[in-house]
Amino acid sequence: MHPDENNESRLPLRIALIGAGGFLGTNLARYLGSRVAEVRCFGRRQAFPDALQGFRWITGDTSLDTTEALSEVIADCDAVIHLASTSNPTTADRDISADAQANVIASLRLFDQCVAAGIKRLVFISSGGTVYGIPAHVPIPESAPTLPITAYGVAKLAIEKYLEVYSRLRGLDYRVLRISNLYGPFQTAEKKQGVVAAFLSEAMRGEHLEIWGDGQVVRDYIYVADVAESVLAALQHQGEQRIFNIGSGTGLNLIELIDAMEHLLGRRLQRQFRPGRPVDVPVNILDCMLAKKELGWYPRTDFPDGLRRTAEWLETWHRQQRCQVG
Amino acid sequence: MHPDENNESRLPLRIALIGAGGFLGTNLARYLGSRVAEVRCFGRRQAFPDALQGFRWITGDTSLDTTEALSEVIADCDAVIHLASTSNPTTADRDISADAQANVIASLRLFDQCVAAGIKRLVFISSGGTVYGIPAHVPIPESAPTLPITAYGVAKLAIEKYLEVYSRLRGLDYRVLRISNLYGPFQTAEKKQGVVAAFLSEAMRGEHLEIWGDGQVVRDYIYVADVAESVLAALQHQGEQRIFNIGSGTGLNLIELIDAMEHLLGRRLQRQFRPGRPVDVPVNILDCMLAKKELGWYPRTDFPDGLRRTAEWLETWHRQQRCQVG
Repeated sequence: MHPDENNESRLPLRIALIGAGGFLGTNLARYLGSRVAEVRCFGRRQAFPDALQGFRWITGDTSLDTTEALSEVIADCDAVIHLASTSNPTTADRDISADAQANVIASLRLFDQCVAAGIKRLVFISSGGTVYGIPAHVPIPESAPTLPITAYGVAKLAIEKYLEVYSRLRGLDYRVLRISNLYGPFQTAEKKQGVVAAFLSEAMRGEHLEIWGDGQVVRDYIYVADVAESVLAALQHQGEQRIFNIGSGTGLNLIELIDAMEHLLGRRLQRQFRPGRPVDVPVNILDCMLAKKELGWYPRTDFPDGLRRTAEWLETWHRQQRCQVG
Repeated sequence: MHPDENNESRLPLRIALIGAGGFLGTNLARYLGSRVAEVRCFGRRQAFPDALQGFRWITGDTSLDTTEALSEVIADCDAVIHLASTSNPTTADRDISADAQANVIASLRLFDQCVAAGIKRLVFISSGGTVYGIPAHVPIPESAPTLPITAYGVAKLAIEKYLEVYSRLRGLDYRVLRISNLYGPFQTAEKKQGVVAAFLSEAMRGEHLEIWGDGQVVRDYIYVADVAESVLAALQHQGEQRIFNIGSGTGLNLIELIDAMEHLLGRRLQRQFRPGRPVDVPVNILDCMLAKKELGWYPRTDFPDGLRRTAEWLETWHRQQRCQVG
């Protein structure tokens, strides 16, 4: 649905999406665009400019001191969704203090601006895959110990903890969504963001699938449209809870993931095993019962269906890329 | 004992004390000075220059990018004790992003330098009074949830969590000491650091004791010499545990604290009640059994004895201050 249509049924919310130009941001803008009064997008660049046509876009970088551009985007907004990040679990470890500067400090400056602008609700997209570290038990509830093993996870956790202080001292109302391993349309293999997009792309190109470790690493894969629903629920949530796991609640290892892809594509995929990486916890499955109870949210897309829709999007995207090159 | 004497019985350790010029730093330098081969002191300024005579002192500020001065002090050291802090639980909340910059980011830069210098052990002085927030139960074990309600507590917790990442990825061996409410010689009322020094100073000047809240706030008071012993134990600890509570393991409310002071001073003290502060959790008592088991450490100074020694030091110090003024 185009963001300009069907104004009557929309929630009377003006929302700023901070970090709107990437995989999740593009999905969120499109999902919320037809459900709330206004979505303003802020980010360093648009990975998929065609997909964000019709949205108000402001270019800026939260990791720099872009006070003016940020002020402009959040002025008069009811809510802010913060998903800006300059790094991922692999890259954040390269220069830990620079990563903390670009993400933790940048988030605090954003929160200061939200307080100054009188933002009524901030939703922070955190990382259910990294804040817990190596879990003692799965599925992992929100109350489990948070012992991240990567700088990426520590940064997300520190931002969560600072949000609680902003809430207590500055009155900034917030919700945190700890998202598991995301997959879906607008995720590409180029940015090494997700194994689903990476494997599907390799499969479509007829390449070997590169498996880090022995393939027994278990992850909780959540379809991006389901996450978008959880964000809308978090924007409206009334209640005492602040932090919610958002995942499928079930785990797949890499071999099972590849099996599902072989089933979808109807052919055998070649596998190439690589040494494991220190950023990989052995297992991560989120307990999402609190989100069900408090947000009325549950993951509606089963994995085979999400995988099919992701593969369809990737196929179209690859075709467009080839046309642009050719 | 002067740092130059009795070399034979010392541990063959060269130690850099980062943040050496204040209350705890001055105590630590003097305690360790006679027990290890060398103590190098680094800090913004010396609050008690006479007490640090004979120590190598390098002036610098970890919150600025003083790479050279820091490199100089940690070069060739075996261990680093990090207790530098630009704020306290009250002041940190005033500008949260500036506080994170001056303390979290500064600590990460220090850790980078420790890695580069091949430091074999880092001991970080954390805050048992703030990292837990409002406890569900007391005494609080190290495994309790960490839900700080102040920026000061979040910063300490974030530094702890980043240390674990530095350990895993960069091989920086560390121990964290979560210290409860410190008191003892070299703590003065001027910096609003501790209620023991504040009350004793007010009592000595014949003023009313200013009580924030209803006086029922319970704290775990630990004598600074006991903390110095725990630091020496943490420098040498071999074992899997990384984080230790260091406190008395018992709680006193403010009224009981004042009763103990009246008993010591042999006279009645006037009380003035003020509104409570948002940074004050209602109760904090640390469970220190892990430190006993792993470090062989326990608090040896009972409160009446520590209070007496603190009062004696403060009386001498106040007399010196008056002489300097007069």
